[in-house]
Amino acid sequence: MSAPRVIQSQPLTRAAFAPFGDVIETNGAASFPINAGRTERFHALAAVETLGEDADAIISIFRGQPLEPLLIDLMERHPKGSQAFMPIGNEPYWVVVAPPGEFDPARVQVFYAKPGQGVNYHAGTWHAPLLPVNRDADFLVVDRRGPGDNCDTVDLAPPVRPE
Amino acid sequence: MSAPRVIQSQPLTRAAFAPFGDVIETNGAASFPINAGRTERFHALAAVETLGEDADAIISIFRGQPLEPLLIDLMERHPKGSQAFMPIGNEPYWVVVAPPGEFDPARVQVFYAKPGQGVNYHAGTWHAPLLPVNRDADFLVVDRRGPGDNCDTVDLAPPVRPE
Repeated sequence: MSAPRVIQSQPLTRAAFAPFGDVIETNGAASFPINAGRTERFHALAAVETLGEDADAIISIFRGQPLEPLLIDLMERHPKGSQAFMPIGNEPYWVVVAPPGEFDPARVQVFYAKPGQGVNYHAGTWHAPLLPVNRDADFLVVDRRGPGDNCDTVDLAPPVRPE
Repeated sequence: MSAPRVIQSQPLTRAAFAPFGDVIETNGAASFPINAGRTERFHALAAVETLGEDADAIISIFRGQPLEPLLIDLMERHPKGSQAFMPIGNEPYWVVVAPPGEFDPARVQVFYAKPGQGVNYHAGTWHAPLLPVNRDADFLVVDRRGPGDNCDTVDLAPPVRPE
């Protein structure tokens, strides 16, 4: 395996992440009261994309592991649907993405997602598989179920090491 | 307000909750490995219902408050879509439900949901508004966006006190 390419991470913010998807967090989001004022609704932080006939949105839990050594050598995309990840616990995770379209290794970016921050990859956004920073962690996942191939992968050479 | 009706809570389990919706938790759920074995996928613990034309699934965050005094005097249902709640933090919450169809106060049940347990109310299931047990708490919510009236309410008299 060739020497890794180190990519400096940036904080996960809505503005920086906009080309790739949505950030799911209350911080900086508009809200309105419901339930006679007892609940604050931070509304529609993300929309679920389910392209094609006979597709629907499903809710799953993914239990992810850190990588040791921390080398990302594969990315994937889901052309027919979005995929949202919300940490259930207090574990940060790496978000490694590249814009939709033909994969361009020069455009890979790394975000450091804090607990309380979810992401929703838009359909077609290239992303690395789920990657907690320190330890095994559970994430609520909302994505598409339906007919047709919905996963393309690409090899990363040299591999990327988030930092 | 009339004297409350105390309803003893039961633990939230898939079997007991089946008439009302899905329990979203890894405990007791099947899973399979993805991402070259680094992720365990507890697949499709719930499906999102979005009835009618031009509707889609959205992801929001609800920040709920406990009730003081703990008296539930209203329940609601969403005839056109499911509504899922997953605690982001470590706060338990009360799940107060009645079966779909004409509301029957005699069939109200109370579940105590632990951290790590989400619920997905099926379309039409009567439920009380979001109700953390002890303190303000955030929940990831997946529900329907679309045209048409999607919220019926009913008054509970006497009010219900979960215990």
